[in-house]
Amino acid sequence: MKKSIGPKTVVYPAPVLIVGTYDKIGNPNMMAAAWAGICSSKPPCVGVSLRKATYTYGNILDREAFTLGIPDHAKVAEVDYIGMASGRDEDKFAAMGWTPVRGEMVDAPYAAECSVVLECALFKVLELGLHTQFVGEIKDVKADEGVLNENGIPDMSKVQPIVFAPESRAYYSLGRFLGRAFSIGKSFRQKKT
Amino acid sequence: MKKSIGPKTVVYPAPVLIVGTYDKIGNPNMMAAAWAGICSSKPPCVGVSLRKATYTYGNILDREAFTLGIPDHAKVAEVDYIGMASGRDEDKFAAMGWTPVRGEMVDAPYAAECSVVLECALFKVLELGLHTQFVGEIKDVKADEGVLNENGIPDMSKVQPIVFAPESRAYYSLGRFLGRAFSIGKSFRQKKT
Repeated sequence: MKKSIGPKTVVYPAPVLIVGTYDKIGNPNMMAAAWAGICSSKPPCVGVSLRKATYTYGNILDREAFTLGIPDHAKVAEVDYIGMASGRDEDKFAAMGWTPVRGEMVDAPYAAECSVVLECALFKVLELGLHTQFVGEIKDVKADEGVLNENGIPDMSKVQPIVFAPESRAYYSLGRFLGRAFSIGKSFRQKKT
Repeated sequence: MKKSIGPKTVVYPAPVLIVGTYDKIGNPNMMAAAWAGICSSKPPCVGVSLRKATYTYGNILDREAFTLGIPDHAKVAEVDYIGMASGRDEDKFAAMGWTPVRGEMVDAPYAAECSVVLECALFKVLELGLHTQFVGEIKDVKADEGVLNENGIPDMSKVQPIVFAPESRAYYSLGRFLGRAFSIGKSFRQKKT
């Protein structure tokens, strides 16, 4: 028998991503966001939801572009700070000593310190209430060579992303490899027959 | 210098959730989905993107409801199977020996085997291409008492969700606690001044 705990925002795990944008005068800004995830394979799209109060909100609407960076868990304190401070008040790249790099495909910067970054062109805007979901078409992914596997795809165990628990507001690291998707279930099918 | 790897669907980490629905004749169905995440705090909403070809797609449109269950990583092989087989061909609850429970708030079932489940009423539908994003308003969360923390919120380290890497198609477990959100960054701010 399960216990009802009310309408909470619990989806485990949630990511923690660094959203990169330029403001009206061309200064790079970054914020941390957890209400995000892939939402389409073709075209490849990612959704990220932001409050209208954020500095990033206006930047995305103005430039119709943003980047998403996947930060290493070793930078979790910096990332938490980037999620609390506002680009209205300070240059967070300068405050953190991080390096903004101009996107190649879209009009938005990314942090060189994130080993994997997605360059996104604004594709859809969905008003949901307190949050607005920005759906970006992923125009390119850029990654440090050191995190790629033998097929040229990022290896999550090398990327070491932050794994976030909403509501309890806790950050975790990645654990151990469990198995291959679209593969380990086949053995279950064999067990069944 | 980062390497361009093209427009890949890499957001780390991604969740693996069990989507529960009733079909036209009232049979419970479940599928596994990874293109999902919280997309609004108020109202609390979650988005899950599905291909039109899935059995679940029509079920959600018919009933305007779905549930999302968070499976324990010990069930990763079953979950992988649930992601490959179709409810058109077989009763996956019966095949897995899982127990469908009628939702209390919405017209959709959930799997008793998931320690945390979200009951969702269809709120918005966003056509994106191959995938359609269903945004559900979270009407209630139900959880096994054993996974709740002292504040009555699910403790992710007790839930032990599956942590998924898209593109490389690998499942992982959860790692170690790193720190509290909206907290550990404050010490960074103090370091800065």
